[in-house]
Amino acid sequence: MSATTPTALFERHQQLIEKAVEVLHTREYWSPFSENMKKYPEEKVKSASSDFKALCDQHFDLEAPAVVKQVSGEESPYGFALGISYDQPDRNALLDAMEAALPQWRDVGAQGRVGVCTEILQRLNDMSPLMGQTVMHTSGQGLMMAFQAGAPHAQDRGLEAVAYAWDAMKAIPEKARWEKPQGKMDPLVMEKKFHIVPRGIALVVGCSTFPTWNTYPGLFASLATGNPVIVKPHPGSILPAALTVKVAQEVLKEAGLPSCLVSMMPDTAEEPVTKELALDPRVQVIDFTGSSSFGNWLEENARQARVFTEKAGVNSIIIDSVSDLKAVTKNLAFTLSLYSGQMCTTTQAIYVPKGGIDTPEGKVSFDEFAQALATATSKFLSDNDRACMVLGAIQSKATEARIDECRSLGEIVLDSEKREHPKFPDARIHTPLILKVDGQDKATYSEERFGPVSFLIATEDTDDSLRLAREVLKEQGAITLGFYSTDDQRLDEAEELAKDVKVALSNNLDGGVFVNQSAAFSDFHATGGNPAANASLTDTAFVVNRFVVVQSRRHV
Amino acid sequence: MSATTPTALFERHQQLIEKAVEVLHTREYWSPFSENMKKYPEEKVKSASSDFKALCDQHFDLEAPAVVKQVSGEESPYGFALGISYDQPDRNALLDAMEAALPQWRDVGAQGRVGVCTEILQRLNDMSPLMGQTVMHTSGQGLMMAFQAGAPHAQDRGLEAVAYAWDAMKAIPEKARWEKPQGKMDPLVMEKKFHIVPRGIALVVGCSTFPTWNTYPGLFASLATGNPVIVKPHPGSILPAALTVKVAQEVLKEAGLPSCLVSMMPDTAEEPVTKELALDPRVQVIDFTGSSSFGNWLEENARQARVFTEKAGVNSIIIDSVSDLKAVTKNLAFTLSLYSGQMCTTTQAIYVPKGGIDTPEGKVSFDEFAQALATATSKFLSDNDRACMVLGAIQSKATEARIDECRSLGEIVLDSEKREHPKFPDARIHTPLILKVDGQDKATYSEERFGPVSFLIATEDTDDSLRLAREVLKEQGAITLGFYSTDDQRLDEAEELAKDVKVALSNNLDGGVFVNQSAAFSDFHATGGNPAANASLTDTAFVVNRFVVVQSRRHV
Repeated sequence: MSATTPTALFERHQQLIEKAVEVLHTREYWSPFSENMKKYPEEKVKSASSDFKALCDQHFDLEAPAVVKQVSGEESPYGFALGISYDQPDRNALLDAMEAALPQWRDVGAQGRVGVCTEILQRLNDMSPLMGQTVMHTSGQGLMMAFQAGAPHAQDRGLEAVAYAWDAMKAIPEKARWEKPQGKMDPLVMEKKFHIVPRGIALVVGCSTFPTWNTYPGLFASLATGNPVIVKPHPGSILPAALTVKVAQEVLKEAGLPSCLVSMMPDTAEEPVTKELALDPRVQVIDFTGSSSFGNWLEENARQARVFTEKAGVNSIIIDSVSDLKAVTKNLAFTLSLYSGQMCTTTQAIYVPKGGIDTPEGKVSFDEFAQALATATSKFLSDNDRACMVLGAIQSKATEARIDECRSLGEIVLDSEKREHPKFPDARIHTPLILKVDGQDKATYSEERFGPVSFLIATEDTDDSLRLAREVLKEQGAITLGFYSTDDQRLDEAEELAKDVKVALSNNLDGGVFVNQSAAFSDFHATGGNPAANASLTDTAFVVNRFVVVQSRRHV
Repeated sequence: MSATTPTALFERHQQLIEKAVEVLHTREYWSPFSENMKKYPEEKVKSASSDFKALCDQHFDLEAPAVVKQVSGEESPYGFALGISYDQPDRNALLDAMEAALPQWRDVGAQGRVGVCTEILQRLNDMSPLMGQTVMHTSGQGLMMAFQAGAPHAQDRGLEAVAYAWDAMKAIPEKARWEKPQGKMDPLVMEKKFHIVPRGIALVVGCSTFPTWNTYPGLFASLATGNPVIVKPHPGSILPAALTVKVAQEVLKEAGLPSCLVSMMPDTAEEPVTKELALDPRVQVIDFTGSSSFGNWLEENARQARVFTEKAGVNSIIIDSVSDLKAVTKNLAFTLSLYSGQMCTTTQAIYVPKGGIDTPEGKVSFDEFAQALATATSKFLSDNDRACMVLGAIQSKATEARIDECRSLGEIVLDSEKREHPKFPDARIHTPLILKVDGQDKATYSEERFGPVSFLIATEDTDDSLRLAREVLKEQGAITLGFYSTDDQRLDEAEELAKDVKVALSNNLDGGVFVNQSAAFSDFHATGGNPAANASLTDTAFVVNRFVVVQSRRHV
């Protein structure tokens, strides 16, 4: 048996997969793919930047049937064009080829598919330093974040999806003997088989800001459960997807399987292809990360498919009282600064009572709190090199323009500044804009303002904060909710609020954990129960809707 | 602690629940609720008929807020009016009350909810003889079938849903300690809580033919996962639902919980309420069994809810060759006769090659096969008492009229006869109508003809049968597919077909198992992967879409 057959790959990774399944159910800390760059071969880390540059200004080759055009146009938010071109296959030819390949992939069985998926992730991990570079120069993330979120953390999320799929599929026996007693007569005896059958072809529509982290869960959940996958990357962040598809195609080929089982369909903003793909009856599963308007369009129109969306929301923090003002504002300064707020988990709305908040040193007024947050943020970003590393660059020009558009929406607590990157003078780098608004001005703070814009909302008191946050979270949804209080009863109220509006809660974060971070295998990213997302990354519902069980039975 | 608290109820039933979960994953034979009427107390069996009559011509009392009108009009297909009236609550008042009760039910937790659900099922089991009577006189099923399918088998399906819910919920830990190493620094340590949070209020829309069997999976899946449930029975089959809701309300009350957590909303065909209920934003989960047109309407319009439908399809059998013609035709005669074909699993399309089929005694021509099936069916129904028991009565006048309407659709192989029930002279009893049609006449046999109507379809050969069946199953869907062949390669082809069209397959049934029967804990009823149903009764996907996980975390 060749060492690259699906079965051999499963055996190679079996321990890892079993450990992953175990952790899903304990939700303790675990990360199979190291986030420490020093754990990767030194030469790969050193050459990552030149490896990335070697890909630029070239054609990127992938297996694709019936190429109809070349697509290009990626621009690094750090100020240069990538100059890479990609093949766009003919939609019908691609779907035909994938549909023809489906039965073979289906009949590989759950074990073999899980083996192939894990091997893909392992090889992606090996190229993490290069992947970090590609994520940096498409999303605009700072290098360290691009490396961590774009490579090991994304791989963790991918393996988490594979583990959930394996857990769900192995719960269904391949065979059963059914023996029904018939009193004094012979029992009725049947032999039954149960097949895991994928829904069809899966489409994963990526976003520009997290081209791997938000793509891998859907990609690996669909693939492990038997669905061939088309990756449709955001036109601004194609390269990380292309590298991923290339690795997948290599592993599939080595395993003796059709490489088209994972294919890429790149497009441009001017000539988008997603709608046509999404409405094709052969496409039965869709994963999407991006705007609410397009996510809602998919949910409403791609009726033939199971659609999993992560859309926009208004992430919120409610501040009632704190035990360490400095630690809290430092924590929040990091949250608001990281990747210039371009995370789907970054806080936008911060509710603070007009009368101020209690601290061990006595009452701190609203304005004092606002000032403390502004100071903490300025101080945190005072070292320009570190600031550029944390802020990264603004991915899109629309987000950059939004900063200016928002300046007039409230009283400026901290103005956004343009910064210059030490190495990339044309990079779009901006510090956070923090505005003060009144609680009654709901229309202003309850609309998502993607990017480095947040609102300090002056409320009557904590009851009012809870009431306003409840309304906004019900209407707009959110992925994250933070709460600060030294009062246990208030913490219980926040817990009730979280359950009622179905948003994950972080309490009193004032150390090295941030409300906008979520850890694979432990934190559920989005609940799937509010308007910000109709699915969670990753839970059982995320995988089991991708396949059905077809049984057969006969008498023995 | 009272013996009826949710926790006490869980402890009481824990062994049963654990056994149920175990069997879900082995899919061996198991039935916790006996289908043998003799296992029930003799006095209950004897008094069942009079207990049923005592309910007739009365008002049926249930807890309901703000009653707006009385609903009545059920008629036994055996020829008499039930004369029972029910309260219809005000929709808004009911939804308000249920929404107010939701947090309490949610916070009972998974164990307690599973305990309450199992106690309800246990008490329903205790009243099985009476339930059989009520199912008989609403659905028209023969008494034995009404008893078995309406009581123990429905309860099995209910417990199966509870077991799946428990299996899925207990896979999520209530708490976790997350400890992330930080090199030489202290680790980051967080305490996390994970709450199972129901989606909202659940609506179960029942059908007239299986008022309990098709209602219990959705009812118990939603209830166990924390969703308060409104049962909206078919106007023709309210009583079995009313008895079920009454038992649920009693158990809830004894457990110190709001009885409105399970409520009934009866209506009439003239003034239906389902659409309004289904579109209410508070309704977040809907289960439906019935016509494709209404099922599709729900899927397309009740966008705020997770919708689980079981609709119409064209159940099919393909005959290539048989090893025992007599046994096969006898098996098919029973399938076509049972409950006059009013099962969502009854075969409608039987594909037979024009050139005949191979048997150990040589070739049997198409017409010989047709005659053998007609003879087997006539013979099986020759004893009128037994025939009436098996056929039951035709539930609706529309189905009765359909028999006549279909007579002209093909050449009559076996005509339908009206029969007279020994005890109920006005009962609507009809034997099966079997028609011969040509394979090219797809429009005729590929439309669902609910009731005792089936088509013997003359095809070119088995390849043609497979091709035609594939087309019809893809377009129309099905819950069951039967295949007869003595050739292993043909059986493999059938297995491929089943996987491709996502329909459960039964091979060479010629004994005491019938294609239209499915056993809880072993057979998946519908795959959820073809147009006949978007969900399976019951699998993991059927339960996990009914709740989300809301987590909270804080530093230790």
